[in-house]
Amino acid sequence: MTDTMQRIVLAARPQGEPKPTDFRHESCPIPTPGEGEMLVKIIWLSLDPYMRGRMDDSKSYAQAVQIGERMEGGAVAEVIASNLPDFAPGDYVSGSFGWQSHAVSDGVLVRKLDPKAAPLSTALGVLGMPGITAYVGLNDFGRPKAGETLVVAAATGAVGSLVGQLGKAYGLNVVGVAGGPEKCKYAVDELGFDACLDHRAAADASTLRKQIAEACPKGVDIYFENVGGKTMEAVIPLMNVHGRIPICGMIAWYNAGGPGSAQNDGPDRLPKVWRTILVNRLSLRGFIIFDHFDRYPDFIREVSGHVASGKVKYRETIAEGLESAPQAFIQLLKGGNFGKQLVAVSPDPTR
Amino acid sequence: MTDTMQRIVLAARPQGEPKPTDFRHESCPIPTPGEGEMLVKIIWLSLDPYMRGRMDDSKSYAQAVQIGERMEGGAVAEVIASNLPDFAPGDYVSGSFGWQSHAVSDGVLVRKLDPKAAPLSTALGVLGMPGITAYVGLNDFGRPKAGETLVVAAATGAVGSLVGQLGKAYGLNVVGVAGGPEKCKYAVDELGFDACLDHRAAADASTLRKQIAEACPKGVDIYFENVGGKTMEAVIPLMNVHGRIPICGMIAWYNAGGPGSAQNDGPDRLPKVWRTILVNRLSLRGFIIFDHFDRYPDFIREVSGHVASGKVKYRETIAEGLESAPQAFIQLLKGGNFGKQLVAVSPDPTR
Repeated sequence: MTDTMQRIVLAARPQGEPKPTDFRHESCPIPTPGEGEMLVKIIWLSLDPYMRGRMDDSKSYAQAVQIGERMEGGAVAEVIASNLPDFAPGDYVSGSFGWQSHAVSDGVLVRKLDPKAAPLSTALGVLGMPGITAYVGLNDFGRPKAGETLVVAAATGAVGSLVGQLGKAYGLNVVGVAGGPEKCKYAVDELGFDACLDHRAAADASTLRKQIAEACPKGVDIYFENVGGKTMEAVIPLMNVHGRIPICGMIAWYNAGGPGSAQNDGPDRLPKVWRTILVNRLSLRGFIIFDHFDRYPDFIREVSGHVASGKVKYRETIAEGLESAPQAFIQLLKGGNFGKQLVAVSPDPTR
Repeated sequence: MTDTMQRIVLAARPQGEPKPTDFRHESCPIPTPGEGEMLVKIIWLSLDPYMRGRMDDSKSYAQAVQIGERMEGGAVAEVIASNLPDFAPGDYVSGSFGWQSHAVSDGVLVRKLDPKAAPLSTALGVLGMPGITAYVGLNDFGRPKAGETLVVAAATGAVGSLVGQLGKAYGLNVVGVAGGPEKCKYAVDELGFDACLDHRAAADASTLRKQIAEACPKGVDIYFENVGGKTMEAVIPLMNVHGRIPICGMIAWYNAGGPGSAQNDGPDRLPKVWRTILVNRLSLRGFIIFDHFDRYPDFIREVSGHVASGKVKYRETIAEGLESAPQAFIQLLKGGNFGKQLVAVSPDPTR
């Protein structure tokens, strides 16, 4: 064990797309855990679109990361020293440990992991925050009924891929939207989607809309919204009466810099969308998974067995080394990942 | 009784704001009711913002009125001849009789009225479609809790005035938005709103927002949306976490002619609104009252006594004569009415 640790801090607030220089790699001494604390060594760092919001200074559901402060993020780690009765060296844990190689933690909101039950990395993906986001969004706010049609944006992403697979298990017609032919093929061939459309191949929202309409001859009952942008614009006019739109993200707009930036130029699409909400009596529900962790036991009960048996599939994109995190995150915001984006911060001893 | 009747038909589809020439006044013989039909003479015609939508050819929740076809609308009438067992001459009824002086009806969806229980005209306002819209929207989709803050657009309109009064009865802080000082004063002094802001006096949405924010120091939990436009743009950023937005109208945009028309010029406000829905975990619910007539008994049970006792107040703007309906409707879309807009088609014998 070296005496220094690595971490990545926010160097500057991004204007639009983050650049490598918005991050800074730092070394510092490994801290000693105090009373009621433990020291963990990070194995897997999770990269998630929501992190883009933390880089801005505007009001959001969580506080912004300050300039010079370590980037936040969920991670899987091994306990290497502990002054906590519930955690011992050698334990595997998941928690919000941040973009760094080591972390001191008081154990609050830290969960112990059983590496025999599922690969450690799944605690950050299909059995972690993206997984429960898919589960709660589809069940609680999508309210699916067998035979209905579900459209899933970012269909092969960490959230979307589980949304679609759960949708198929519930007897829905599931149509995905993803970026590129490889992802679309995977959604249909491996994940079992009925169809998947390539938003990159569609010149504009109305072209994409025509393709989605063909794949959804009975209209769209549930649109699982986690991207915004062109996909959202394509799907909303196809919503059936009493349709439901759970909204857990809008990655297409995360880099938008507010009015005046390119993404906010006219025309103003709000009146049309508002009219569709009214005329088709839609239910829209924004949700942040942190409000719904009480659903965790139900989620694990339903999904963990399917992951163990291979019925529910997942895919990971792994960036090697903490120093690769900024570039991997920049790519993630452009859809450069395929499935769950992870950073291998140190070797996984169970893999 | 004359042998001819009057009616108003759609002469042309309006481009933006309707003009008088978009309507045509016609005379025709009074029809004779056949078997299973009755003939009614219209007393009160209701004018409602939703009628603007019926004048367009685009997809909506109800079929468009065709060119040359009589304008649709709810009305109160007296039965003057009947081949229906449940209706007799002299009965007062409400139904969708249209913009005309007489109507033949099969009695379906026609309701008998007791003129002793409440003035006949209230069947088109506070005890009719606008009233139940207020009741269902606030209770079922607003889900109010005492102590919360409610903002009501079109505060002195047929819907908004009941929303606000019910809100006060439920222990909410109620802030209205209305057009002009007279309406604002009425909302506070007569209807009991805690405050009411004049959207006409506010230069833009952000000025209006500052005023609403001052009147809502604890933020906004429920925004009862029936106007869209500047008011909506002002309120949405003030919504509290887990806020609710029942949407039953968007009068400010009814005259919008689609992308390219003045109201749809940029900037595109959709990304900002979408972000607020997500970050503040808002519930938006479009609703059309025709889906919720099963709530009518509950509504009447709760509200009719309050109307009879004077606890719930209402106000009417009356245009004289069927021929005045087009101009009154054009004014209604600009907020020219004060309370429920009615047309006195023939004298009310009970008034």
